[in-house]
Amino acid sequence: MNTSGSTRTAALPPEHVFDWLDDAAAQRAEEGLVRTLIPRTAVATQLDLAGNDYLGLARDKRVAGASAAAALKWGAGATGSRLVTGSTEVHAELEYELARFCGAQAALVFSSGFAANLGAVTALSGRDAAIVTDKYIHASLIEGCRLSRADVAAVAHNDPAAVEHALKTRRKERALVVTDSVFSVDGDLAPLEELSAVCRRHSAALLVDDAHGLGVLGDGGRGAVHAAGLAGAPDVVTTVTLSKSLGAQGGAVVGPRRVIKHLVDTARSFIFDTALAPASAAAALAALRALRDEPELAERVRTRATDLSTRLAEAGFSVSTPDGAVVSVRAPGPDEAVAWATRCAENGVRVGCFRPPSVPDGVSRLRLTARADLSESDVDRAVAVITDNAPPQARH
Amino acid sequence: MNTSGSTRTAALPPEHVFDWLDDAAAQRAEEGLVRTLIPRTAVATQLDLAGNDYLGLARDKRVAGASAAAALKWGAGATGSRLVTGSTEVHAELEYELARFCGAQAALVFSSGFAANLGAVTALSGRDAAIVTDKYIHASLIEGCRLSRADVAAVAHNDPAAVEHALKTRRKERALVVTDSVFSVDGDLAPLEELSAVCRRHSAALLVDDAHGLGVLGDGGRGAVHAAGLAGAPDVVTTVTLSKSLGAQGGAVVGPRRVIKHLVDTARSFIFDTALAPASAAAALAALRALRDEPELAERVRTRATDLSTRLAEAGFSVSTPDGAVVSVRAPGPDEAVAWATRCAENGVRVGCFRPPSVPDGVSRLRLTARADLSESDVDRAVAVITDNAPPQARH
Repeated sequence: MNTSGSTRTAALPPEHVFDWLDDAAAQRAEEGLVRTLIPRTAVATQLDLAGNDYLGLARDKRVAGASAAAALKWGAGATGSRLVTGSTEVHAELEYELARFCGAQAALVFSSGFAANLGAVTALSGRDAAIVTDKYIHASLIEGCRLSRADVAAVAHNDPAAVEHALKTRRKERALVVTDSVFSVDGDLAPLEELSAVCRRHSAALLVDDAHGLGVLGDGGRGAVHAAGLAGAPDVVTTVTLSKSLGAQGGAVVGPRRVIKHLVDTARSFIFDTALAPASAAAALAALRALRDEPELAERVRTRATDLSTRLAEAGFSVSTPDGAVVSVRAPGPDEAVAWATRCAENGVRVGCFRPPSVPDGVSRLRLTARADLSESDVDRAVAVITDNAPPQARH
Repeated sequence: MNTSGSTRTAALPPEHVFDWLDDAAAQRAEEGLVRTLIPRTAVATQLDLAGNDYLGLARDKRVAGASAAAALKWGAGATGSRLVTGSTEVHAELEYELARFCGAQAALVFSSGFAANLGAVTALSGRDAAIVTDKYIHASLIEGCRLSRADVAAVAHNDPAAVEHALKTRRKERALVVTDSVFSVDGDLAPLEELSAVCRRHSAALLVDDAHGLGVLGDGGRGAVHAAGLAGAPDVVTTVTLSKSLGAQGGAVVGPRRVIKHLVDTARSFIFDTALAPASAAAALAALRALRDEPELAERVRTRATDLSTRLAEAGFSVSTPDGAVVSVRAPGPDEAVAWATRCAENGVRVGCFRPPSVPDGVSRLRLTARADLSESDVDRAVAVITDNAPPQARH
């Protein structure tokens, strides 16, 4: 650091106060970890296998139309927090229908899935609680744990026995087990039924982030919690996003009525945040109805994910077996992953590229997301471009 | 807690796992702290003095129209995080114009002001840093401090000498001073020039949450940081919301280019969050342009706030002298505040009601927000209804 010494007798000139950021940037550049924002155009020029619009509903006329109509009817913003002026009839309707769709008593809409996770984890734990998490949970859940002041134990991935051991040896009476349903990087599914059984043996509540499960898994896309037979369970709380399968923006907590009431009164990321824009709430509601009308959308995206995975495995890559819409393809290293993804993009196929520190296991990979509206020729094209542009070491 | 004893030999039945929430709810009910969501209708039935749509732009045709048009052009959602598929040309344009408007090098749009504050505080501090905050900062900044792992000192409200003492006695070389510009509860302004001078004497960076300043204070609504002569300062970072004066949703960080780059690479509430919906970004951009075209909007809202404050003081209430759009009226206690606000609503005037624990000083009050589009007769009506429905002890 360019400081004037530990006694701080002479002040740094203002223009040097942030010099430490340049050192940090240089360090990141050396490690290949600089990220760049690349704004996209409205008309897609690439086949998108990177976004989370799993059902292709973001641009669906019913959904985009509902968003536009709500903006004109309600205005562009909610004008305040949910507890002041930000709750509209659209929010209430969405909460009612979302809870019903998921088979739960109640739901509460937040401005993002990130905020929903912060709110759910903090409000359902606290100093008097133990939290046991899968070590690969989403960053927003990790932030919630950090804010919670609870005793937090992060245990091995998808390992109910490890969860059980942590619950057994906890020092707090009250406990919350936290997991993703479909893990965002590899797309693998948590053993929800076994986790619930472990929770029940040890009087713990279970919080499941079903961001990548809603619209993809379960009967008509009702999500992984529903598929595991845990919909409406009195000891299970689910968080979802409105920005993936539902094509909009926002997040929600779905669960027992008393949990939802508790969040209204105590979740700081709910109380102190401007409400979700009515246009986004209306879009999510329209998408939910579209999914209810076309339950086959959920199956279609799973089929496309399996197609992608099978074809890439046949081509010799190390590919995850998708439990949902996400397919992960192992890359030899971070630089190779970036180069591979870049070559795919140059050839018209946009794929995700995950590398440290955004991957929990240190393994760089391409991350592909299937969509219900991918055609067979889209899959052909994707497989061809990924194969043609692969680094030699990527095949086994 | 209804638990089976400290040895946990018998598990709780699942339906009892959340029984502790009922105890907490009963406690809140006893303390008068239960909150209720009251969804509003699209056509306003009350005069709104509670929302944060300070310039009345949320329902402006240019703004709501831009939101609707963007939803139809781009779809209802951004489809992914900013670093994957969520950055659109609209986000880039908004960031460019917002930075220019505020006189800064660069800006970065988040999905909420809450997320922007989490990102800015955590990315600009860390284990190696000290944070000195005003004790009345917004909850989202407090959450950022809790996540930061920095040494955090919260000092007396609007007290540069206390900040200076904390900076002098800090044990970390690097330091960040954090404050609101206009404090959300009482609407009073932080002494930004003095705080900046203190920061510069002690080589600290200054982070200002200008959520309630943008669109209201400074030349043409350029905000409190601009008004303090700190626009473009190399050691000052500003956070703003897009959901108050700009009538949309979202938040942003505005500041030196290297700060923005650092946030793109490291701010977890940026990297791991779905991007702001293009419709909300487009609405904020349209509002920014409307404000640029009508710089008198900012002065108008300040005049209306002063009108409200003066008239209520003349009527005998303890009223804050507004530095921005927020006017705070002291209530005798929490129950009286709730009853007062309820009677105002029943008589057609919606006012905010702030009470513990949402007020930092334990004092319950009505919170009124002025809007640029309030007419003189709106002000007359508001003052009459507030006066007619006041508890006797509210006047001095």
